[in-house]
Amino acid sequence: MIEAAAARLAGHVRETPLLSAPGLDRIAGRRVLLKAECLQHVGSFKARGGWAAVSALDAGARGVIALSSGNHAQGVARAAAAFGLPAVIVMPADAPAPKIANTRALGAEVVLHDRATEDREALAAGIADARGLTLIRPFDDPQVIAGQGTAGLELAAQAAAAGVTQADVLIPCGGGGLTAGVALALAARAPGLRGRPVEPEGFDDTARSLASGRIEVNDARAGALCDAILTPSPGRITFPIMARLCGPGLVVTEDEALRAMAAAFEHLKIVLEPGGAVALAASLFHGDAVTGDAVIVIGSGGNVAAETFRMALRQSGEMQ
Amino acid sequence: MIEAAAARLAGHVRETPLLSAPGLDRIAGRRVLLKAECLQHVGSFKARGGWAAVSALDAGARGVIALSSGNHAQGVARAAAAFGLPAVIVMPADAPAPKIANTRALGAEVVLHDRATEDREALAAGIADARGLTLIRPFDDPQVIAGQGTAGLELAAQAAAAGVTQADVLIPCGGGGLTAGVALALAARAPGLRGRPVEPEGFDDTARSLASGRIEVNDARAGALCDAILTPSPGRITFPIMARLCGPGLVVTEDEALRAMAAAFEHLKIVLEPGGAVALAASLFHGDAVTGDAVIVIGSGGNVAAETFRMALRQSGEMQ
Repeated sequence: MIEAAAARLAGHVRETPLLSAPGLDRIAGRRVLLKAECLQHVGSFKARGGWAAVSALDAGARGVIALSSGNHAQGVARAAAAFGLPAVIVMPADAPAPKIANTRALGAEVVLHDRATEDREALAAGIADARGLTLIRPFDDPQVIAGQGTAGLELAAQAAAAGVTQADVLIPCGGGGLTAGVALALAARAPGLRGRPVEPEGFDDTARSLASGRIEVNDARAGALCDAILTPSPGRITFPIMARLCGPGLVVTEDEALRAMAAAFEHLKIVLEPGGAVALAASLFHGDAVTGDAVIVIGSGGNVAAETFRMALRQSGEMQ
Repeated sequence: MIEAAAARLAGHVRETPLLSAPGLDRIAGRRVLLKAECLQHVGSFKARGGWAAVSALDAGARGVIALSSGNHAQGVARAAAAFGLPAVIVMPADAPAPKIANTRALGAEVVLHDRATEDREALAAGIADARGLTLIRPFDDPQVIAGQGTAGLELAAQAAAAGVTQADVLIPCGGGGLTAGVALALAARAPGLRGRPVEPEGFDDTARSLASGRIEVNDARAGALCDAILTPSPGRITFPIMARLCGPGLVVTEDEALRAMAAAFEHLKIVLEPGGAVALAASLFHGDAVTGDAVIVIGSGGNVAAETFRMALRQSGEMQ
């Protein structure tokens, strides 16, 4: 399915570069290679899953609906527009303003909900029923997982070209769509590379689920900086894949994510959003939990408000 | 010479991506394609010219010396270290601190001078004579121009793949090494693409030289934001090439460069330094001086201090 998705995505998503810099290697104490999915269309890997899912719809589909804090929204909206389908996106009212604006600019109808009090699944199901729309889930959808997995196919080839065949691959993890898709691709194409989910403190449902062997749920539901990866639990499809293929999860603080954003600014000249920087943060500040001479990280998205980015640069300067 | 340089550079510099975003196209009123040389090793295209020059040295070379505000410094230092040669870099004392620090981190010996009062050419010549070092000029050197021209070879292929065969190519211009090199490559590989130098207000020596037909000199010598491209005049080698192959020069304000940095942050998720953002600024804010349905710009570097980048994001927010 990942290979089939890659064929449908060809020419419609970017092969993102695998970047590195001596300054990052010095901080991490080992070679660091970052796959810059922030340079993907719509600013995150979600362009992959969105295109994979929309391009796999039946010819009779009347439109799509998605639940998203902003990145999946843009991935689905972009693909729907390209296929001439209407798109409704249900987003939390506290999603970053640029994500809401960009989703609308891509032609989608945005419906806002309260992340803390409303049941977004029920809200979306109601709209989908009333208007005959197909729901595209953000991670627990086989086509979405396959689409995200195309990043893993690219990574397997890029890591081999860089001479890295044995390494941990640190992956920002919300519901696990990217982590599961990349882990599947690596298992087939680069068995020496092992996926490891990375989450922010307080939203470590996947790390705890991998440790306990069953799906665990977060207490916190809102208010954290890493808005892209604040899902309450890993998915019913993604979790068994991660449990079979991934190493233990890693957890970083918000301060570490901000410092990783500043390091990516300084050394790689790229913009990462907080949720997109957690894997880099783990490589830089939790190296003792990583094995090998090299580590690969995915910088999964760059859709961050200017004010948040300015804060990351300011805090990092004060810490130096 | 450019093709020979490309062969020597293969595997040692990155093929940088050609990026685009609907949001930029909306601001510019035409399709905008940006070649992201800020993602190059050492954060700018200068990695190309530095490697081209150092890799072309005689086997008996005892070391290299360069004059640079920071980007050429890092390009030469990186190449010299790779070839096991000592490198001395003469830099202005007011160069951005990260550029000085990064040049030292690459193993070079940094000698600081006063941009306003000291003759840096004489200073460098004295050190070169005393220590038997080969001077690598920042732009008026055939191998350096050939190295920068490798970006033009990549661009010709990338533009064709994107379906753009007739367009202006806007290029940040200091002494003209990148502009001349890219113009030569385009003339051979993509004759419908025309190079056009872009400079900051007050440092428009190349625009005025192209208009008058002879080498003009700037009055101002220091104090401007676009530190990477503040040369007093185009080069004796680069100017005739630009006069033969390029269209008229474009000039942007510092405010426009800062707003272009913010636009690149928001829409492309890349970090541009002020001097590296002038071509994007011209595409966004001087579209009336550009011809065609599409415009190609080079984002030539991303080595900017965090405080300057924060200012760009803050000013842009206030302007919106």
